[in-house]
Amino acid sequence: MDAAFRPVSVTRVRAGRRVEGIDHAATEEPLEVRLHGRPFAVIMRTPGADRELAAGFLFAEGVLKSADDLGTIEHCRQHGPTEAGHNDLDDNNPTNNPARLGLTDDNQHPENVVNVTLVNDAARRVDQLLAERRQVTTNSSCGLCGRLTIESLRTDRSPLRCEWTVARLVLLAMPDRLRGAQSVFDQTGGLHAAGLFTADGRLEQMAEDVGRHNAVDKVVGRMLMHDALPLSNHILFVSGRTSFEIVQKAFLAGISVVGSVSAPSSLAIDLAEDAGITLVGFVRGDSFNIYAHTSRIAD
Amino acid sequence: MDAAFRPVSVTRVRAGRRVEGIDHAATEEPLEVRLHGRPFAVIMRTPGADRELAAGFLFAEGVLKSADDLGTIEHCRQHGPTEAGHNDLDDNNPTNNPARLGLTDDNQHPENVVNVTLVNDAARRVDQLLAERRQVTTNSSCGLCGRLTIESLRTDRSPLRCEWTVARLVLLAMPDRLRGAQSVFDQTGGLHAAGLFTADGRLEQMAEDVGRHNAVDKVVGRMLMHDALPLSNHILFVSGRTSFEIVQKAFLAGISVVGSVSAPSSLAIDLAEDAGITLVGFVRGDSFNIYAHTSRIAD
Repeated sequence: MDAAFRPVSVTRVRAGRRVEGIDHAATEEPLEVRLHGRPFAVIMRTPGADRELAAGFLFAEGVLKSADDLGTIEHCRQHGPTEAGHNDLDDNNPTNNPARLGLTDDNQHPENVVNVTLVNDAARRVDQLLAERRQVTTNSSCGLCGRLTIESLRTDRSPLRCEWTVARLVLLAMPDRLRGAQSVFDQTGGLHAAGLFTADGRLEQMAEDVGRHNAVDKVVGRMLMHDALPLSNHILFVSGRTSFEIVQKAFLAGISVVGSVSAPSSLAIDLAEDAGITLVGFVRGDSFNIYAHTSRIAD
Repeated sequence: MDAAFRPVSVTRVRAGRRVEGIDHAATEEPLEVRLHGRPFAVIMRTPGADRELAAGFLFAEGVLKSADDLGTIEHCRQHGPTEAGHNDLDDNNPTNNPARLGLTDDNQHPENVVNVTLVNDAARRVDQLLAERRQVTTNSSCGLCGRLTIESLRTDRSPLRCEWTVARLVLLAMPDRLRGAQSVFDQTGGLHAAGLFTADGRLEQMAEDVGRHNAVDKVVGRMLMHDALPLSNHILFVSGRTSFEIVQKAFLAGISVVGSVSAPSSLAIDLAEDAGITLVGFVRGDSFNIYAHTSRIAD
């Protein structure tokens, strides 16, 4: 099994017949990048080539100007010092305390933490870089740091428990309805779309954007401006892949069914399961897959 | 013309024949979101439903808890006060000074700035929200604030001027080579891929990720760790759409040809033009489109 994919339970619906099975979802997990043992950024990523990702990310951020600035890049070892001499998961260091970070079972795993040391002039800039960066990692609610945010959502909000159903044929009609509402110029496939549907399949709101998260924000924002939140009894349907962040935005808005023509990530499925959200993918032709909370899809 | 798309010049290459024409690229521009007249965040977005986007974004960020917190959301009016009484493009206010922000002609346009006012308890949190957020908007190099970053790149780095060519047939083979190197489990279409090719079409590095920017960071990071930057005479080929950020990462790494099976955004094209990067899209079958610096593609 390639670590880039994870087996997940799925209910396949084909021409009205339901079959339970196993699917493979692209793995999405948070990677915490540390500079000299201190948190710098959290990246939602697919495990694999983590050291390379950290190097490329720090290069794009201007932290590394060249290979000359780079000392070591190592996965942290739980309860053991790194080569740079830091005890990376030492609970006495508040910034490394898993409880404080909200990291639970899955993500305090050392494979989700990479520590980078800089050398020469770059090493002397570490304190400043961390001070400038601090707020980025601690204040973002945009899907950074998966388990952290899942945990905080769990604490702050109860799972959605509303009981209602979407008919199979209503769901199957959504891709065409959404496409039909897109701009005439979107023959280019250049834009993502997000649509908010009622239970009987009416497209109540839709928005397009180069950023798929923006399209969802536009739809939710319009309903917020109409003071129409929470969006119980609505379906969010998106044109692209479903990431953790899309499901998170749906959850915050109280949307209990999320559908897509494409694949969900592993963490999107985890969050949907925890948040009480019905998650549907690959809505195409007369078939789709249900990844969480099947009961809201009626035959 | 829908503002979501912009006409762009394109060189269409079909079975070896070149035809100059006009294409429509999805518009990507920075939107500056202000709280009570002060910069809070910059979002790369497609113009349209900007007020809704600002509302949905601030809701997802936890700034707005409900519609009750929302006072006004207005596009800024150049050299005029907003309804909240702020003079939004007043040069005497350093945070609103276009020169300081690096915003030039295109993006100091008031339509790229939205000002939000909060009411009640939320209004009392504005100073704290801004203090926490400040570093997010001023220290990110990940593609936020398009023209700002284009400007700073322009100043810091010269356009790429390396003269070399990629043969048309070599370019046309890249989508299949990249796909062939992807994980066996990627039948799901769940992962983005980025490949680094040599001029003769050899796939030197490739990476996969749920995030397309991560896939590029992994490839560039691996080459940085090998002290192989700048990547002159290399082609970056990506499986998805080409945003500003992808071209920016290529530019930083010195990559002068970027290709994709899909569409580039308007700002990706602008940056490629300015940065001396050959930008190719829709590489499919025996055809592709060149959006900037055609001379590096040989017949």
